[in-house]
Amino acid sequence: MTQSEKHERMANTIRFLSMDAVEQANSGHPGLPMGAADIATVLFSRYLKHDPKNPNWPDRDRFVLSAGHGSMLLYSLLYLTGYEDITLDEIRSFRQLGSKTAGHPEYGHAAGIETTTGPLGQGITNAVGMALAERLMNARYGEDLVDHYTYSIAGDGCLMEGISQEAIAFAGHMKLNKLIVFWDNNGITIDGSVDLSDSTDQRARFEASGWNTLAIDGHDAEAIADAIEKAQASDKPTMIACTTEIGRGAPTKVGTNKVHGSPLGAEEINATRKALSWPHESFDIPSEILDDWRLAGLRSTKARAAWEERLQNTEAELRGAFDRAIRGDLPGGLETAIADYKKKLADEKPKAATRKSSEMALEVINGVVPETIGGSADLTGSNNTKTSQTDPVSAENFSGRYVYYGIREHGMAAIMNGMALHGGLIPYGATFLVFTDYCRPAMRLSSLMGLRVVYVMTHDSIGLGEDGPTHQPVEHLAALRAIPNHYVFRPADACETVECWQLALESRDTPSTLALTRQGLPTVRVDFEDENMCRYGAYEVETASAEPVVTIFATGSEVSLALKAREALEAKGQPTRVVSVPCFELFEKQSDAYKSAIRGNSKVRIGVEAAIRQGWDLFLDRDDPFIGMNGFGASGPIDDLFEHFGITVDAIVSAAEKRLAALDRG
Amino acid sequence: MTQSEKHERMANTIRFLSMDAVEQANSGHPGLPMGAADIATVLFSRYLKHDPKNPNWPDRDRFVLSAGHGSMLLYSLLYLTGYEDITLDEIRSFRQLGSKTAGHPEYGHAAGIETTTGPLGQGITNAVGMALAERLMNARYGEDLVDHYTYSIAGDGCLMEGISQEAIAFAGHMKLNKLIVFWDNNGITIDGSVDLSDSTDQRARFEASGWNTLAIDGHDAEAIADAIEKAQASDKPTMIACTTEIGRGAPTKVGTNKVHGSPLGAEEINATRKALSWPHESFDIPSEILDDWRLAGLRSTKARAAWEERLQNTEAELRGAFDRAIRGDLPGGLETAIADYKKKLADEKPKAATRKSSEMALEVINGVVPETIGGSADLTGSNNTKTSQTDPVSAENFSGRYVYYGIREHGMAAIMNGMALHGGLIPYGATFLVFTDYCRPAMRLSSLMGLRVVYVMTHDSIGLGEDGPTHQPVEHLAALRAIPNHYVFRPADACETVECWQLALESRDTPSTLALTRQGLPTVRVDFEDENMCRYGAYEVETASAEPVVTIFATGSEVSLALKAREALEAKGQPTRVVSVPCFELFEKQSDAYKSAIRGNSKVRIGVEAAIRQGWDLFLDRDDPFIGMNGFGASGPIDDLFEHFGITVDAIVSAAEKRLAALDRG
Repeated sequence: MTQSEKHERMANTIRFLSMDAVEQANSGHPGLPMGAADIATVLFSRYLKHDPKNPNWPDRDRFVLSAGHGSMLLYSLLYLTGYEDITLDEIRSFRQLGSKTAGHPEYGHAAGIETTTGPLGQGITNAVGMALAERLMNARYGEDLVDHYTYSIAGDGCLMEGISQEAIAFAGHMKLNKLIVFWDNNGITIDGSVDLSDSTDQRARFEASGWNTLAIDGHDAEAIADAIEKAQASDKPTMIACTTEIGRGAPTKVGTNKVHGSPLGAEEINATRKALSWPHESFDIPSEILDDWRLAGLRSTKARAAWEERLQNTEAELRGAFDRAIRGDLPGGLETAIADYKKKLADEKPKAATRKSSEMALEVINGVVPETIGGSADLTGSNNTKTSQTDPVSAENFSGRYVYYGIREHGMAAIMNGMALHGGLIPYGATFLVFTDYCRPAMRLSSLMGLRVVYVMTHDSIGLGEDGPTHQPVEHLAALRAIPNHYVFRPADACETVECWQLALESRDTPSTLALTRQGLPTVRVDFEDENMCRYGAYEVETASAEPVVTIFATGSEVSLALKAREALEAKGQPTRVVSVPCFELFEKQSDAYKSAIRGNSKVRIGVEAAIRQGWDLFLDRDDPFIGMNGFGASGPIDDLFEHFGITVDAIVSAAEKRLAALDRG
Repeated sequence: MTQSEKHERMANTIRFLSMDAVEQANSGHPGLPMGAADIATVLFSRYLKHDPKNPNWPDRDRFVLSAGHGSMLLYSLLYLTGYEDITLDEIRSFRQLGSKTAGHPEYGHAAGIETTTGPLGQGITNAVGMALAERLMNARYGEDLVDHYTYSIAGDGCLMEGISQEAIAFAGHMKLNKLIVFWDNNGITIDGSVDLSDSTDQRARFEASGWNTLAIDGHDAEAIADAIEKAQASDKPTMIACTTEIGRGAPTKVGTNKVHGSPLGAEEINATRKALSWPHESFDIPSEILDDWRLAGLRSTKARAAWEERLQNTEAELRGAFDRAIRGDLPGGLETAIADYKKKLADEKPKAATRKSSEMALEVINGVVPETIGGSADLTGSNNTKTSQTDPVSAENFSGRYVYYGIREHGMAAIMNGMALHGGLIPYGATFLVFTDYCRPAMRLSSLMGLRVVYVMTHDSIGLGEDGPTHQPVEHLAALRAIPNHYVFRPADACETVECWQLALESRDTPSTLALTRQGLPTVRVDFEDENMCRYGAYEVETASAEPVVTIFATGSEVSLALKAREALEAKGQPTRVVSVPCFELFEKQSDAYKSAIRGNSKVRIGVEAAIRQGWDLFLDRDDPFIGMNGFGASGPIDDLFEHFGITVDAIVSAAEKRLAALDRG
């Protein structure tokens, strides 16, 4: 049998597994797996450095199926090369509840799924993050431990999404030459021919951002191999434009949008069997072909053993650091450093914006935790994310720790996801809170995948002032709290800020957003407490002088307003307690007893947050007053705005009194 | 005085007004207005077709300052050319609460502000939408009535944002040759040199998407003029790369990020006065220079008069149609057509997915309302947005009514904003509800500007099935409801769907999102009612057989579950009413009496929606049960999913009984 015949039958295995699984599920996308089978076969059988029996080998090549709807391509590859998580039974259960073979590849469902894809453009940007992480880790731990490629298959959908431009421009600028992207150039989108909506010269576009590009017949195995070798040797990231036929092999539907997202039907599958001379039954893979695949899956066994040996021979301190970073454990010194810093804060009681408090906290953290990689989407001086330890990362200096992401919020978020997925690093990145809207698809994926990514979001309310309503978040706290598995922290002062940072770093399976002020705030946590009070999500920051009549719940910049309102109410004879609420999600996780105690039994409850009320029923009853925003903000100096929108000490006091009077009237 | 001297002093007026206003406000961005003053002066004094005394002239050229932080450039131009809304006093009140001169240009604050900009990348994409609208209107009403350019100034920030790629690729594909974009190529971003984060060859990038590009010295008036004339003659959209100095004229800060976003300070301003030989006081504009500007503002008076004459001479029917479309009034026939259609629905009681019901409604609407422009981000067959009347729009056919936006959700939304801003058209566009995350920055601007844009968002819950959690919205209804001034409609059947469509079309100042199912639904509105019941936001769709003990509130696909649960509860002797809630926001606008009556006094209230609970305190008390989602969805067949996540008739019934028992226990 020639090499070419062997390739053909290996690739056809992917085609038939994909057709069969989609047919069985009566749902799915056969077109891409059939079209990209040759690319994937060459890559996985001849180039990809991976070990199916040790799928978490840190120095494996990463493979990202950015066109996630073609999930059967990935599941076929994982099954065929011998990943234990993906059995033939799993493939038979494609798209069924509880199976590992979900409609789109879901990170965590099975080893070998490097990231969750499906929302287009995310995968290719994750791949950029992985390729960046590889260079960063390589600079830290050396060629012996970190030296791998990142491959991705992207379709027209990924390349039309705006985020792909952010990814491409960033990767080109950073000269991430170990990143290799295959463009599955099949000329078809769901609506029909790509010509309906696009006429971009993709090679020229990539080249404009500093990429190496190649163009090949995506069904010619030797051309694919040749291109991969050229790409591996390039000093730039490489895009390989692979001309393919979507649904390759299906006699009547090939090359059309009919094969993109629907089962082919028994008739077409049988016709494909004839056309490709494939006499086997559904899900039946002849053992000699499976053997070829399994052998291919063993290809990197020696390389992995050699790597293990190198790791064993690595100097103990470096090896320990590498192991710890890969495990994702925090360094031992962090807790002490934070405790010392909190003592200092209790002494000094700084008046600072929480964005500044975040910088101060980061100065402590970055001094102890070497794996943090900071950054900002071109708002470094405003987000206060750069500390003394963090030199800029550049194509010439991957030992840096600070990324100038450019004005690319969405790309930043998805690149951070890629870094977190790669392992060994803890990325944090920043922009204004209002621009979480730009990051949202990637933030959702941080949550869905359960990644430790920290979003530093400053300018968190109308308190930013003159920039006006386009820059003033009002609905963003609510919108972020709506995302499952996402901590939204809104600290009230420097002490809460470092506590929230600590929680974010300790949170290995839940991403965090820190909402931070532009404006200066007084210290509200005046006494040192060793315990991280923010861990409870909400806690009494000031007790009432007697059995409380009023409880004020507030977050962030409004906690100091609440404390002043408390003083005024106490002076008027109304014992008032103040609950600071740095994190709704953590509060929800507390025991019923704790929650009930924090809500308390005071006659009046008030919520205060310079944002909309939505979500505050966690603390308030329907008739309880809320002091916040009812619509968009406005451009003006901060004091004018808080006055104009009625978020003032007086407003809190008067709402409490009004509510008391109403209750007393009965 | 030479032409060149005259230009120089006109441009310097912009520079000093901008410096002075930022200094007075002690807040703002002087760098861009100073750098782009020459471009803007040439454009506004020699080319822009506009009439400051008739700022809403439908055939004016549009000017979009995509780099919205440079708002003083726009305010200066509007004041200098004689727009009445922007007085010198307004400029003195730059960035003050209540002034028209907000920190970023806010649409609606003053005539001449064509769109709200500030969130980067939006303006250039709005401009694409305006340029598209111009071509569409031109095809409908002819060269005599519609024939204008759209100009935009964009900075590096706009071009780094991913959305700009969607805009560029779309505009190039559509050959929008009356679109002219100036790239303010000053080499500086907030973090420092552009080199920190980007090395894209922008001309090559634009050319890759079919643009004409030019490169000039952005301070050479004649070069600017020459480039504009070349651009006007091009058969492609044109990008003019203008090399400029940010903060041009400021002796020490020019060309640095120090001049980007902070006041220059008195010292630097005085030094600039000397450097530019400008002996005048702050806000003092010598009358001869103001005269030059005001004369320039009169340049198109004759053109406008000629246009008015052409309009007068236009055949009555066409003219009437044009006037009505520009006014934004709906055609008279719509109400009758909808009433007839609702009668038909009451007769036929179709069982259909609401995405299909939306298509049926659109078939009626598009037959009567010629100004609708439909589209989808490459999910036409899934979103059901194309009807028999809507031929595709293409570079060769602008008389079409359906836009294949490509896989560009964000771009689609911002292009629709541009079309709505242009006037004369009602855009609707579609993707899956989960991908509203991709559109969100532009959707927020639809709301902030109060535009009639309709977002058709299908596949609105786990009901989409096998595609899994990346495609299943759970937090999106809450997240969209959080946006101020945005109607989120979730109709329950074909009748509610057409009613919601009617409300969306009638809503001139509030954008709408229609959340629609993939799965088939029974008719819940079985009897014909002339009145649009969805107008109330929530209404009793089924009464209880006696004084109600239970009220079930439900939306969309869950209304039919609620009705079945009602039957079961009634059978068990518990009188139960069902309230359908197609729109939270409209319900909130009803009278207290209506709201109170709809909430009712039944012992038990239950909310049912296949989404998270956040926001449901509009109807529920804290202890009232809610049947919905608590986290992300999963991949599997629809019935398995509803069962797995406990959104079933049984679950509703049992929650009601449990709550009743708890209340009875006291």
